[in-house]
Amino acid sequence: MSTSSESKFHPIKTNEQLLTDYTPQDGQIKLRNPHIAEMEEDVLYHLALSNKKHDLKEMFHDVKFVCFGGSPTRMQNFAELLVSELKIKIPAGQTLTNIAHGSDRYVLYKVGPVISVSHGMGIPSLSIIFHEILKLIYHAGCSDVVFFRLGTSGGLGLEPGSVVITDEAVDELLRPYMELSTLGMVIQHPSKLDKDIADELMTLSNPEGDGYMTTIGKTMCTLDFYEGQARLDGAFCEYNEEDKVAFLKRVYNRGVRNIEMESLCFAAYCYRAGLRGAVICCTLLDRLKGDQINTPHNIMEEWQCRTQRLVIAFIKKRLGIN
Amino acid sequence: MSTSSESKFHPIKTNEQLLTDYTPQDGQIKLRNPHIAEMEEDVLYHLALSNKKHDLKEMFHDVKFVCFGGSPTRMQNFAELLVSELKIKIPAGQTLTNIAHGSDRYVLYKVGPVISVSHGMGIPSLSIIFHEILKLIYHAGCSDVVFFRLGTSGGLGLEPGSVVITDEAVDELLRPYMELSTLGMVIQHPSKLDKDIADELMTLSNPEGDGYMTTIGKTMCTLDFYEGQARLDGAFCEYNEEDKVAFLKRVYNRGVRNIEMESLCFAAYCYRAGLRGAVICCTLLDRLKGDQINTPHNIMEEWQCRTQRLVIAFIKKRLGIN
Repeated sequence: MSTSSESKFHPIKTNEQLLTDYTPQDGQIKLRNPHIAEMEEDVLYHLALSNKKHDLKEMFHDVKFVCFGGSPTRMQNFAELLVSELKIKIPAGQTLTNIAHGSDRYVLYKVGPVISVSHGMGIPSLSIIFHEILKLIYHAGCSDVVFFRLGTSGGLGLEPGSVVITDEAVDELLRPYMELSTLGMVIQHPSKLDKDIADELMTLSNPEGDGYMTTIGKTMCTLDFYEGQARLDGAFCEYNEEDKVAFLKRVYNRGVRNIEMESLCFAAYCYRAGLRGAVICCTLLDRLKGDQINTPHNIMEEWQCRTQRLVIAFIKKRLGIN
Repeated sequence: MSTSSESKFHPIKTNEQLLTDYTPQDGQIKLRNPHIAEMEEDVLYHLALSNKKHDLKEMFHDVKFVCFGGSPTRMQNFAELLVSELKIKIPAGQTLTNIAHGSDRYVLYKVGPVISVSHGMGIPSLSIIFHEILKLIYHAGCSDVVFFRLGTSGGLGLEPGSVVITDEAVDELLRPYMELSTLGMVIQHPSKLDKDIADELMTLSNPEGDGYMTTIGKTMCTLDFYEGQARLDGAFCEYNEEDKVAFLKRVYNRGVRNIEMESLCFAAYCYRAGLRGAVICCTLLDRLKGDQINTPHNIMEEWQCRTQRLVIAFIKKRLGIN
């Protein structure tokens, strides 16, 4: 009876212990959820895929890189760029297709060993697709997968168009963890990112030749785009320019170089899953100088290609493609 | 000097005082942000609209209802349904078009006095579009506008396909407010909804004739779809079936009838803006019985039409259309 009663309790482990348990020694993705293996079918609802109705192993077993980004169009364009950069041969009469076309929540493309997937805007939207992608690559039996988030952000003290590689994601109060309310408890998940991958990405940039700055810094992740990022141009605002600039300068002085809305969850989930991950964002404006994004569309398009080129350089290096 | 120093402080007002200040006595939308009126141009970035490049007054001045929903396809379908239900004449050779086509973040349709707009998934994604829609109808000079969120949700103790009209939105810890980190402070915004609109919607339902249940209840709003809603089928899970059911039953016993991911922000922002608003969701499953959504697509489509029909009945009644 004592055994039965004890078995109802879940032993508390530190995150380090959990990582040791779950970090795949053989590189194979494991899930920190024992229930999935017992389920007869696992419907990845927001991708309109299922491990019973689709042969996920056949479809995805060779995946080594997963690239997330907010906008569906941008992730489609990235997939098309990958085709040419990785020299993927698509037979005549065939074309890339959105594998998640049965749902209109996200788009999902596969180009050789790379998945390009949209995550929408904000932590909750990223969280859903992260869970489902993690289950997808688990069902597919993938190993040694690296995750990237390619994003846009507001910069701090940087020329617009600069690229920031995140070394640490922090929340709106500069806390380096994501709080997640789970069954009435507020649990803190550390938002550590892989230093090696960030450094390796940095070596692939070329500030002299690129014509723009690439830097490593902290990224602040907020739940709100307007008040949460100290903007004066939302529908609600109860502070003034002076308050705003004072806050952003204090944040800058603590090492934050850009502000966006997904890095905290992305970093926390990569760390929890024992996965290597990196966040690379271009900055669309300098928030110390303004709030509104009114740079011409074609210039912003070019800026967004900068993060894509950096990640493609990383992938090509890993795959040994020149 | 004393005056100049004092003028830097913002007087603290209760929400009731703020509502009295901002609730439009003449029905005209006002903004709780003094900066907007001083801006030379206001770019509604995520809608690809601007008050300088578009004649927002000409385009939107007659809007009386704004309907938000997560999925872009569903909001397009709703717009098409509105055309026939409100007997809107679209001249030969013309068609409905997504007004926000310059951005791929949201879709925005206008059908007579009704806006149908997608909000993506989760509070941050809703927050962005809510700010921009509020500024849009302010620039357009709209008055007496009612806001609706038409959503999908997990039900508690309800037959799947039931419709829940929210009387109060609460967070994962049952708190009736949204916390928003703003310039280093965590500010609580009450998530009250308009009781009159909820009651009026309820009178338009017909549980006998409809063949499904429509009910008024509390809605729990979470930042996460898997662990945040006590699901066992995410990529991470550190509790068991017993923990899950105990939690959901406790939540049910406090009056919660469904769980989704946007109502808290929607309610809080309506209340802050002095706008009448309602949240109407269909339930796709009974969470006391399961986690996975595997009902056939066509049946779920029919369920989602139930919330649309209820809101259309409300709009037709207000417009005096039989």
